Amino acid sequence: MEKKLIVDVCLSPHLYPVYHKDDHIVVVIDILRATSAMCTAFEHGVDKMIPVASVEEATEYKNQGFLVGAERNGIALEGFDFGNSPYSYMTDAIKGQTIVISTTNGTQAIEAARNAYKIVIGAFTNISALCDWLQTQDRNVLLLCSGWKNRFNLEDSLFAGAVAERLSAGGLFRTGDAALAVSSLYSQAKTNPYKFLHNSSHAERLAAMGLKADIKYCLQVDRTKVIPVLDGKHLIKLS
Amino acid sequence: MEKKLIVDVCLSPHLYPVYHKDDHIVVVIDILRATSAMCTAFEHGVDKMIPVASVEEATEYKNQGFLVGAERNGIALEGFDFGNSPYSYMTDAIKGQTIVISTTNGTQAIEAARNAYKIVIGAFTNISALCDWLQTQDRNVLLLCSGWKNRFNLEDSLFAGAVAERLSAGGLFRTGDAALAVSSLYSQAKTNPYKFLHNSSHAERLAAMGLKADIKYCLQVDRTKVIPVLDGKHLIKLS
Repeated sequence: MEKKLIVDVCLSPHLYPVYHKDDHIVVVIDILRATSAMCTAFEHGVDKMIPVASVEEATEYKNQGFLVGAERNGIALEGFDFGNSPYSYMTDAIKGQTIVISTTNGTQAIEAARNAYKIVIGAFTNISALCDWLQTQDRNVLLLCSGWKNRFNLEDSLFAGAVAERLSAGGLFRTGDAALAVSSLYSQAKTNPYKFLHNSSHAERLAAMGLKADIKYCLQVDRTKVIPVLDGKHLIKLS
Repeated sequence: MEKKLIVDVCLSPHLYPVYHKDDHIVVVIDILRATSAMCTAFEHGVDKMIPVASVEEATEYKNQGFLVGAERNGIALEGFDFGNSPYSYMTDAIKGQTIVISTTNGTQAIEAARNAYKIVIGAFTNISALCDWLQTQDRNVLLLCSGWKNRFNLEDSLFAGAVAERLSAGGLFRTGDAALAVSSLYSQAKTNPYKFLHNSSHAERLAAMGLKADIKYCLQVDRTKVIPVLDGKHLIKLS
């Protein structure tokens, strides 16, 4: 069977315009921690999330009475309801709610790809559900790594490699150059991603903040079957 | 000994502004084939090269009587003296000459980094000379991959991985996230880079043009000790 679909990887939101095509599905990836936290929030019953790029927008929503998560440089901003730790979303208080979220990298990546055909949210915590769904869509897939302030990062690339490997193994997809590279990275790291990421500048940064539990959580696979998808300005549960 | 210097990788010229620092040495990389061809030209006695980003500038120089190499999309442009095949520079006709060169990716990368502290040219063909020199400079190093039209490519990343591995092994440098990733890529590919690159979109493109000999040449290590360095608008031999 000819592999007619392509899975490729865009390693920084800043590169998105170079990779944009009108018809591909974009998977936004911010493993530590925005997209992991989004999956957790939907798993715990949030109804909608509104990703916004700037703290100003987040503040505006907060003033309107919304629940708002806001994080910059790994730290939850004061005056808001959540940061981007998945643990902060494991509460009944979010059930049925709409939560606005703005983070250092993840929500910037969503913003960069806003004109894509479809944007879904990927994390190790929903990887199987995500890959199974992607394989039924008959669309090219672009894995968009949020990185760190538009720089390459290791944890998002690793996840992109995990997805590329699964899609390639599924027989429908061939890999672009970047997807091939991160697959290779993933194949070296997969026996112990936590140890591998120990070398990562961002993991180091988070560990220094005492967030090792967050990192371990974000590297767990298949905690949920939820796939958040962007619908206008809202993230909702893919049905 | 503390590793105080950093080697990192910028995977696309479009990302250069995100990685720019005032004081690092930038190694411009376009393995297939611009930077390989530049090393060859200097090895064969060219005096200076003038890298220019646009075909218009190249044409202007041509009209002024300069020898000019111009390539777009893998093909030597008509009306110029050279393309970017290293073989075209293996001639006594270039001895002592100044050659203007404009290519799809490599000269764009030089343009993107033009305000760097220092720009040198890297290729497998000068890798040992380059790494030895970098280890004497006491400067952070940024490996700038030219990629393909601002997209990630496999061959430039592979070379960046080879350099990052050597510098890291030398004991003076620690690796940034992207350098760590391409080192991992290189360690998987190094037993047979040609075979590994067979999967690369650009290698496929060149092979389809009948340029397998070029690819094989460009993957040979240490054909020369020359390191081209940018001095104002000219590339000259680092002395």
